[in-house]
Amino acid sequence: MTPLPRTPKERKQDTLDRLEKDTDAWVATADAESGTPYMVPLSFLWDGETLLVATPASSPTGRNLRATGRVRIGIGPTRDVVLVEGEADTLTADGLGEGVGDAFAVKTGFDPRQLVSPYLYFRIRPRRVQAWREANELDGRELMREGRWLVD
Amino acid sequence: MTPLPRTPKERKQDTLDRLEKDTDAWVATADAESGTPYMVPLSFLWDGETLLVATPASSPTGRNLRATGRVRIGIGPTRDVVLVEGEADTLTADGLGEGVGDAFAVKTGFDPRQLVSPYLYFRIRPRRVQAWREANELDGRELMREGRWLVD
Repeated sequence: MTPLPRTPKERKQDTLDRLEKDTDAWVATADAESGTPYMVPLSFLWDGETLLVATPASSPTGRNLRATGRVRIGIGPTRDVVLVEGEADTLTADGLGEGVGDAFAVKTGFDPRQLVSPYLYFRIRPRRVQAWREANELDGRELMREGRWLVD
Repeated sequence: MTPLPRTPKERKQDTLDRLEKDTDAWVATADAESGTPYMVPLSFLWDGETLLVATPASSPTGRNLRATGRVRIGIGPTRDVVLVEGEADTLTADGLGEGVGDAFAVKTGFDPRQLVSPYLYFRIRPRRVQAWREANELDGRELMREGRWLVD
């Protein structure tokens, strides 16, 4: 049987736990000229307010994020999803801030600074966050809107 | 330790198993006018050659698929992914063909024909399929190109 829907507070706490502890996310972007969708799994680091990802500068995700800054991120299995709509800023390793490159390498298990091929980092600021498990949680799935949490 | 990479034949068989047995997929589309990416989990039915999904006609996924026919689909956990790039045809329940609506309802556990809000079905024909688990499987991840399996 499907469990009862979680309270808004529980959903927000579960969402924050997932952002903190999960390693990988599905990252969807689009080529604005052709309208071609792109999506790959990428590892991420959450700092309490933003997600950090890294991908080759020349990859479709890298090109799309630089061109549009628009991203949609799916975290968790399909029956316990966190969906994030966000805006991405492009960063090089030099612009990451003290300790961030190391924290990213520790969390994700890969360190783009050690690679020969050029990588970029992208700092993603959530504008909208939704979370649900089954159909009975579709009501109330909106947890953040226009960059503000709707739940304390 | 990371297991050795699978052979091409193993990857194809694992991919077909996942298409047959998995219920949900991450479905990424894009709004061609604004370049906005969209992505949601949807249940699907695989018939051996195409994936069938259903979504409200007025949803972003429904609108994007009707407008562009372009879709990228992620199946499986992020460390055992199947990625499908495909072209979507729009179908109403009447156009599904004998028994397909029932098969979809049985597989996915939901039957859009029973709902009041208007749904559309989309039949997605894979053009490109990739599958990998860890970084050591990135080489050889391409299993289908231009609609043809590269592996027997």
